[in-house]
Amino acid sequence: MTETMRAFVIKQVGETAVVEKPIPEPGPEEAIVRTTAALICTSDVHTVKGALPVEPGRTLGHESVGVVHSLGSAVTGFTEGQRVAVNAVTPCYRCSYCQRGFTSQCGGALGGYKYTTQMDGNMAEYFVVPAAQANLTPIPDRLSDDWAVYSCDMLSTGFMGAEHARLNFGETVAVFAQGPVGLCATMGANLMGAGRIIAVESRPERQALAKRFGADDIVDFTQGDPVEQIMDMTDGEGVDAAIEAFGFPQTFEACLRVTKAGGRVSNIGYHGENPAPLQLPLDAFGLGMNDKAIHTGLCPGGNERMGRLFQLMMSGRIDPTPMTTHTFAFDDISRAFEMMTSKEDGIIKPLITFG
Amino acid sequence: MTETMRAFVIKQVGETAVVEKPIPEPGPEEAIVRTTAALICTSDVHTVKGALPVEPGRTLGHESVGVVHSLGSAVTGFTEGQRVAVNAVTPCYRCSYCQRGFTSQCGGALGGYKYTTQMDGNMAEYFVVPAAQANLTPIPDRLSDDWAVYSCDMLSTGFMGAEHARLNFGETVAVFAQGPVGLCATMGANLMGAGRIIAVESRPERQALAKRFGADDIVDFTQGDPVEQIMDMTDGEGVDAAIEAFGFPQTFEACLRVTKAGGRVSNIGYHGENPAPLQLPLDAFGLGMNDKAIHTGLCPGGNERMGRLFQLMMSGRIDPTPMTTHTFAFDDISRAFEMMTSKEDGIIKPLITFG
Amino acid sequence: MTETMRAFVIKQVGETAVVEKPIPEPGPEEAIVRTTAALICTSDVHTVKGALPVEPGRTLGHESVGVVHSLGSAVTGFTEGQRVAVNAVTPCYRCSYCQRGFTSQCGGALGGYKYTTQMDGNMAEYFVVPAAQANLTPIPDRLSDDWAVYSCDMLSTGFMGAEHARLNFGETVAVFAQGPVGLCATMGANLMGAGRIIAVESRPERQALAKRFGADDIVDFTQGDPVEQIMDMTDGEGVDAAIEAFGFPQTFEACLRVTKAGGRVSNIGYHGENPAPLQLPLDAFGLGMNDKAIHTGLCPGGNERMGRLFQLMMSGRIDPTPMTTHTFAFDDISRAFEMMTSKEDGIIKPLITFG
Amino acid sequence: MTETMRAFVIKQVGETAVVEKPIPEPGPEEAIVRTTAALICTSDVHTVKGALPVEPGRTLGHESVGVVHSLGSAVTGFTEGQRVAVNAVTPCYRCSYCQRGFTSQCGGALGGYKYTTQMDGNMAEYFVVPAAQANLTPIPDRLSDDWAVYSCDMLSTGFMGAEHARLNFGETVAVFAQGPVGLCATMGANLMGAGRIIAVESRPERQALAKRFGADDIVDFTQGDPVEQIMDMTDGEGVDAAIEAFGFPQTFEACLRVTKAGGRVSNIGYHGENPAPLQLPLDAFGLGMNDKAIHTGLCPGGNERMGRLFQLMMSGRIDPTPMTTHTFAFDDISRAFEMMTSKEDGIIKPLITFG
Repeated sequence: MTETMRAFVIKQVGETAVVEKPIPEPGPEEAIVRTTAALICTSDVHTVKGALPVEPGRTLGHESVGVVHSLGSAVTGFTEGQRVAVNAVTPCYRCSYCQRGFTSQCGGALGGYKYTTQMDGNMAEYFVVPAAQANLTPIPDRLSDDWAVYSCDMLSTGFMGAEHARLNFGETVAVFAQGPVGLCATMGANLMGAGRIIAVESRPERQALAKRFGADDIVDFTQGDPVEQIMDMTDGEGVDAAIEAFGFPQTFEACLRVTKAGGRVSNIGYHGENPAPLQLPLDAFGLGMNDKAIHTGLCPGGNERMGRLFQLMMSGRIDPTPMTTHTFAFDDISRAFEMMTSKEDGIIKPLITFG
Repeated sequence: MTETMRAFVIKQVGETAVVEKPIPEPGPEEAIVRTTAALICTSDVHTVKGALPVEPGRTLGHESVGVVHSLGSAVTGFTEGQRVAVNAVTPCYRCSYCQRGFTSQCGGALGGYKYTTQMDGNMAEYFVVPAAQANLTPIPDRLSDDWAVYSCDMLSTGFMGAEHARLNFGETVAVFAQGPVGLCATMGANLMGAGRIIAVESRPERQALAKRFGADDIVDFTQGDPVEQIMDMTDGEGVDAAIEAFGFPQTFEACLRVTKAGGRVSNIGYHGENPAPLQLPLDAFGLGMNDKAIHTGLCPGGNERMGRLFQLMMSGRIDPTPMTTHTFAFDDISRAFEMMTSKEDGIIKPLITFG
Repeated sequence: MTETMRAFVIKQVGETAVVEKPIPEPGPEEAIVRTTAALICTSDVHTVKGALPVEPGRTLGHESVGVVHSLGSAVTGFTEGQRVAVNAVTPCYRCSYCQRGFTSQCGGALGGYKYTTQMDGNMAEYFVVPAAQANLTPIPDRLSDDWAVYSCDMLSTGFMGAEHARLNFGETVAVFAQGPVGLCATMGANLMGAGRIIAVESRPERQALAKRFGADDIVDFTQGDPVEQIMDMTDGEGVDAAIEAFGFPQTFEACLRVTKAGGRVSNIGYHGENPAPLQLPLDAFGLGMNDKAIHTGLCPGGNERMGRLFQLMMSGRIDPTPMTTHTFAFDDISRAFEMMTSKEDGIIKPLITFG
Repeated sequence: MTETMRAFVIKQVGETAVVEKPIPEPGPEEAIVRTTAALICTSDVHTVKGALPVEPGRTLGHESVGVVHSLGSAVTGFTEGQRVAVNAVTPCYRCSYCQRGFTSQCGGALGGYKYTTQMDGNMAEYFVVPAAQANLTPIPDRLSDDWAVYSCDMLSTGFMGAEHARLNFGETVAVFAQGPVGLCATMGANLMGAGRIIAVESRPERQALAKRFGADDIVDFTQGDPVEQIMDMTDGEGVDAAIEAFGFPQTFEACLRVTKAGGRVSNIGYHGENPAPLQLPLDAFGLGMNDKAIHTGLCPGGNERMGRLFQLMMSGRIDPTPMTTHTFAFDDISRAFEMMTSKEDGIIKPLITFG
């Protein structure tokens, strides 16, 4: 008799539910993980609103850690019961995109993001890990689940934002929006040598976290045009790089406007909410000739990168846990998801624990 | 009594003239060059139409070679009478932008482009060379002026387009438009390891030159949507990089559409004709997450780079002279400029010779 | 009853033989290829001389192409009977080294090189392909086996040498030794934008091939110190990059000596013959402060890179077949191996064909 | 009547003196700075011992800050009396080496290092600044001289060491020797995203500073082979990068030995003490094939980089002043130099103040 588990699914656009599903079996290159902790991501809120076409009944979630439940025949070097984290993006590592280093684009655009879009997500009691050899990351003993779970998406995405800003030490960077991914971009920019970080954010609790994670200056866009504020703060010269962590055309355009010639715009915002094309005004774009560069990307996965995030936590260089504003048992997942949708009570990231 | 020379100037928007001006004297870091050959650039046609605000009476031109007439006190290692080329962009090499490697953005956006915009251009019998130590390039004896003059803008800009495409050997690149800069981008991509070059162009004589310079395939946009044609040619996958050498929103957008995830869009087109912002449609931009990158830039100057272009000519690896479709004496500069405006008679680049 | 095949093995140091072995069966991630053509590599000559510790009876060879004989259960997108090439290096693509991009160091130093050192090589009628999803490369119909087989090691290694030279267009590079890998480095440097290639070689037939593949100048080291010759040829300044394709301390040191400050030394020579450490003389090394860089590497594998090599052949940009000086049937493999050892009759690469 | 100043000079090998010299006059591109604070560098100790051939009577010193005394005619944007710092390396920014980005190699190997070797150094009451437009760095008001003076050599060189280690966030780096430059390399690696820093040092006071500047682990080479200790600490795998900040063949070789395949060795040690060539043992060098890279370099100058160092100090991210173990008035420069030679009393850097 097949054993079952509970999973948090999208029933149809606008509706979620907890349902029973069979505990999955691993293919030769896969693993099954029993979930111990997870985070809810705003991108699932978008998914439930209908931003992405998803099959009804598909399990949501892509930020989970747990213990190895079973391993496929071709997976070596891991043991059942071992504590592991799995990135939101789980590339095959063997297609031409992966071989070129674009693992998040596994098999084609955004193809490394398999949970929810191509298979069941992992807001469930058990979940499948594709290409487990590369995608299972052992969690060091000293690192608790509530720390490790930030490696699955928030830190990897935010740090990618800082990497694509290609900072030289001491340079100035503006980070637009200090939601969890923007906060991680701030932390990443601070870690990778920024000399000055200007964080754009209006909510006091997020401003405070931004400061804690390394921001030097806060720009509150409710107090005036953030572009003007940043230009004033930089004596009219602008910043070396700007990170877009909001996902709106105005913010994207502002990133272009605040960067000096030779500057980099690094996009990590998800632009699926607003169907209008992003705009590149010709003055800010230097008529196409001002040596600016725009980079895009999607949460990079893989246990090598995850291991480096853990090393930074282990050595005390980063601590993402102040972003966990709320904790719920999986039994209360629906309530947690509602709060993530309404963004009430100053919620940043709700941690979900599994019995 | 001051000696005078003839110079080709903009009198006001829409009007040019040949006028007498004093032969300039060099400041300590400058040199004066007596012009022997020049090319007319389409960007001067734009300037005369009013694309850039330029002081009335300003000398036009930025693609000239000649011989050293006199040297400032701080300039060493050159001799009067020596044959030299000077890039369209003449950076100071000492400001913070230059030190960061963005020499075309000397002092700020597009600031390395000084001829016509900040000082007299060099479509004149004599011209000033700022920061001459870095901006005077000796022309090898074996290289005639009609070859060397292509280093001033066309080859440097086109090759920058190929450099910003960051090709791995054997990759596929599309080059949109085969005007002189686009043709040089084709030549550059071929030189830097492209495995397949798809040139977008409708005029037969430019298609022929594109083939001669390394294009493998021609896409005629009058025969159907070039995006569809390129997607078909690449089995629906798209190209690794696209070079925009036309300067229109549609072409820019097409570049984004034809690149696969992880692809690069390298802009060398001048987008000063059409005031509308460029657009990034969200599907082609992967919602900001498909690892695409967009690079912009402006003709890089400096005698080190110019010397490398000459080396490629000297060793027979490149020959730009098939682009010279017409030759005029400086006496006939007005007629040449008219033809460059009307683009009549299949004109690509008119060479101007000085007595 | 297990079917058998013939394989060319090392019996013990100094002795080879053709033996019968069972035709292998594929694991879930593997494929079996029936060999149609192969090249003999000098590194196998070194192996037989005892340079690497290899288990007696191990099949030699790592430059083979063929057709898919059978596929493991986890391998998709290939079909039995399909023509394929396999690189000498067959990484897993999933370990931390592979994820960091150092696929030739799969699992640890030189670990991507599995044939002969970790498993049977492929100078046999059938051979195993590990991680087949990434390591099987379809051969385009228009490309015959005698072309495709050069992608397995020679072109990939030689081109890596040129890549590590990190050439800007128009720069000068010296390539030390024009054996098959050095010749491919010359071809690669030419393809990737070199402005001048100085090939160091004394044998006339190799000098001729070097010229054919893009060398501008030949330095014959039997006619005087090659360092002095190269310094003279470059007006005492030296070259931008030097590629070591010989594998001796003197050549390595010469590479360091001929590079100017800021220069790159790219090593592709196999330094297993001479046990003495390589030396970095302090003057040529600028007391450790002259911005020189030294890069090492091992033939990169993977079907993405192999596909780009095929594209360069398909478009007519490269043709490696002039290096095939001799052809033998597999029946005559022992004679071919003897000639590769003695280097008699001007042999460069012997092609082995399979019935 | 020419005014005079005092300068600290080398009289002959092994002998120094304070002498009177005329206060210099600036050329058109130069500035004269009146010194307010300086540091003594161990490389001057080497120079006095005879490591570099230096003209008798040459002023020593290359780590000085002060106020602008006078400006050449071509220098703009600075004012007399302005507080400024000047890097030890003062490139022209216009030669081919500078244009290629190798400004420390201005005009040829090590040519950017002009003080003492090509002109009087700046351990004097006044000094000349070549190419002042690029080499004068305004000191922010909030930054005192004893902080600013660390930008002249220590921080720029140490941070270059970390830059050449090309760290991905979270990687492990070993820094060999924690003299002032090694300490700055530790600080730089910490600032640029290292996940674990292993500092090799035996002196307790330097170990303590290393910890303060970001080292996670200390290896005391008097307690056992540092290579073995580091391999043990990394579970036999080795480090991603090693920085050589000592300048001895054994340390250089150890750097190669402790790096894993794909690792980087970044040299900042000055190897002028020991004339023997450095050695690359073939096992640690992977027979030339293990994807290791070796980078060398010399203190990068320029006010753009200096400004970024100041920004890091201004924002509180770095504080180099704990390295100042001793302070002397310029009157006592001879005593200070003696102590720097004997390394007595735990001296790290002595600050010299000018009346």
